[in-house]
Amino acid sequence: MRAVAILGSTGSIGRQALDVIAAHPDRFSVCGLAAGSNVELLADQVRAFDPAVVSCAAQAGVSDLGAQLATRDASTAAIRLEHGERGLVAVAAESGADIVLAATDGLVACRAVLAAAERGIDIALANKEIAVAAGEPLFTAARISGARIMPVDSEHSAVFQCLVGEKRSDVRSVVLTASGGPFVDLTREELESVTPAQALVHPTWTMGPKNTLDSATLMNKGLEVIEACRLFELAPSQIDVVVHRQSIAHAFVVMRDGNVKAQVASPDMRMPIGFALAYPDRLDRAIALGSTLRALGLESQRVAWTFEPVDHARFPSVRLAYRAVEAGGTYPAVLSAANEEAGRAFLQGKIRFVEIGDVVAAALDAHDAQAARLPEIEEADRWARSFTRDVVAGTRRA
Amino acid sequence: MRAVAILGSTGSIGRQALDVIAAHPDRFSVCGLAAGSNVELLADQVRAFDPAVVSCAAQAGVSDLGAQLATRDASTAAIRLEHGERGLVAVAAESGADIVLAATDGLVACRAVLAAAERGIDIALANKEIAVAAGEPLFTAARISGARIMPVDSEHSAVFQCLVGEKRSDVRSVVLTASGGPFVDLTREELESVTPAQALVHPTWTMGPKNTLDSATLMNKGLEVIEACRLFELAPSQIDVVVHRQSIAHAFVVMRDGNVKAQVASPDMRMPIGFALAYPDRLDRAIALGSTLRALGLESQRVAWTFEPVDHARFPSVRLAYRAVEAGGTYPAVLSAANEEAGRAFLQGKIRFVEIGDVVAAALDAHDAQAARLPEIEEADRWARSFTRDVVAGTRRA
Repeated sequence: MRAVAILGSTGSIGRQALDVIAAHPDRFSVCGLAAGSNVELLADQVRAFDPAVVSCAAQAGVSDLGAQLATRDASTAAIRLEHGERGLVAVAAESGADIVLAATDGLVACRAVLAAAERGIDIALANKEIAVAAGEPLFTAARISGARIMPVDSEHSAVFQCLVGEKRSDVRSVVLTASGGPFVDLTREELESVTPAQALVHPTWTMGPKNTLDSATLMNKGLEVIEACRLFELAPSQIDVVVHRQSIAHAFVVMRDGNVKAQVASPDMRMPIGFALAYPDRLDRAIALGSTLRALGLESQRVAWTFEPVDHARFPSVRLAYRAVEAGGTYPAVLSAANEEAGRAFLQGKIRFVEIGDVVAAALDAHDAQAARLPEIEEADRWARSFTRDVVAGTRRA
Repeated sequence: MRAVAILGSTGSIGRQALDVIAAHPDRFSVCGLAAGSNVELLADQVRAFDPAVVSCAAQAGVSDLGAQLATRDASTAAIRLEHGERGLVAVAAESGADIVLAATDGLVACRAVLAAAERGIDIALANKEIAVAAGEPLFTAARISGARIMPVDSEHSAVFQCLVGEKRSDVRSVVLTASGGPFVDLTREELESVTPAQALVHPTWTMGPKNTLDSATLMNKGLEVIEACRLFELAPSQIDVVVHRQSIAHAFVVMRDGNVKAQVASPDMRMPIGFALAYPDRLDRAIALGSTLRALGLESQRVAWTFEPVDHARFPSVRLAYRAVEAGGTYPAVLSAANEEAGRAFLQGKIRFVEIGDVVAAALDAHDAQAARLPEIEEADRWARSFTRDVVAGTRRA
């Protein structure tokens, strides 16, 4: 029985993880849940999964949650209710977890994830920003404590699955696939006038707005390149990106002998979530084999999987990510934070789609690198957000 | 240093294996070589690789080989020259081999391969017919002695590579890909009149005539289904075949959790050969990374990989193979032998392409199953060849 703590339990990944856990009550228990402001759903989850430690973002949420749970049976009293960063740390590192699913956005759970990794608690990492901005301290802590870090992103799960039983030193390179997003066929001129509503419609995946917008800019893939460098100890030059519109093949791993392994799956995040939570076991999945093959197009119909290069002129984000990871230090944190703020500004109608990359590039240009320690990373994150907001507000020139 | 014995050293697989071995003199030595009648090439190979035991098909070949090697330096005297089945056994089991590459056609090397497996010598298996006809005794012998059997076929190597580090019990099913061969788009009527010359042009692979014809009938894939049952301990119902014209993705392995792994490679047999010989290591391959990605179409151009169902009405061989493996016993041996003889008859202009499957089906219909022990297998092989030749000669009705 593996005790799971979930940071971000009311988000898309958190909810799907609870689906997986609910389907395997013999394997998993839930020892901790942390959410933001969706206290109503969090209360439902607490009733269903009976965690020992629960946290929400604000003190007010704790009172609200306590009131909602008051109708529950006597065991409620045993639940430890917390809030804020203290609560995230309690859920991650003090709930008795064997594994922590990090499925929050941004760096909000960074210290909590680091605290768990330092205690040797395994991490199922669904939070790109932590891997990108705080990858160095996180993976260093895990190496020292022996905590394992399992990726949840479908692309990194694909690489991770291809590497099962293989020596890391036998890996020559990795190719991550990108769906291309909703704008893959638009010209640079057409990209000038795309709207937030258009950017939030993803061709193959259903995700939150941040990830959906990042797919449209391809910054998603840029962040994944950096995450892959951390997870698999690869140089940026060992990682490539191709556009694969069908989102079926998630990654290719080229071995030193020229053989290439790939992982393919229908776009269902419960599969990489389940793999990360159960690793090194594989869960039984109560779906018909036919439906798996059909979902991949390997059964009755004729299908085509296409692969094509990234157009870096229209989608500069991937190159910005390479620039940040090659520069190292706090640059990846700046990339991630500036991208998040610039994306928010686009969704609020303050800048155009094509300006997102310009704003991020401006932040990288203006940044003075620091070593990648947590205080410096958090400071770089704050600086980049402030800088980006200023650029957006027009007080600085992008 | 791994000592390699090659059965079938002058054939396509044997020659490519020697290329791989020559490129890795630090890893491999050649302790034995067996060939058929191409004594001139065999003599060249002996000069280059200095094996301890050498065999050719006939006694006359031994004299010829001795004469050709007479100009060689004094160490020639130390070579043990043999011929026939005795010679194959000597090369496989008495040359001091750590691994035997079985790359002959048909069952000629069956006893030799079995003798090696019984002695705990690893087998790199490139001979479909032995796996199909004598799979039961071979894999039983290997289980008892601890010999490992590594597939060399690209499809089975793909499955084998996907299974590295995975539990066999986690495999739900396997999908083997078929190029479809040169006739994939012909109608049943057009298939009536195809010629041997047309059948010997393969769209993606360069192979010997037997394998090339088997690709045109898709019996290649049928035999591979049976081989996959043996190698990976799968039921026939766990194996599926799809047509993938580009021959880049060689197999898919569907895991119990719904995740799917694949292996892809440019059509170059040196990669699965190298993987089998070096397993569990991976060889360094002196090719640029760019060329690997380019060969797979994962670099600069836009490519499409297609997948489509097998048309069993036009290509009945795959279903015949399922029938044979489900019936068990000596049926797979009959399938393999009847197919070889029927294919030969087609290449000699004695029957039409579409009659190959009819003749094989007639042999399965007429056969009385025996248990799959070596004497019964060899008898079934002889019976099926004789029966097939009779059918072809018109003395029996197909």
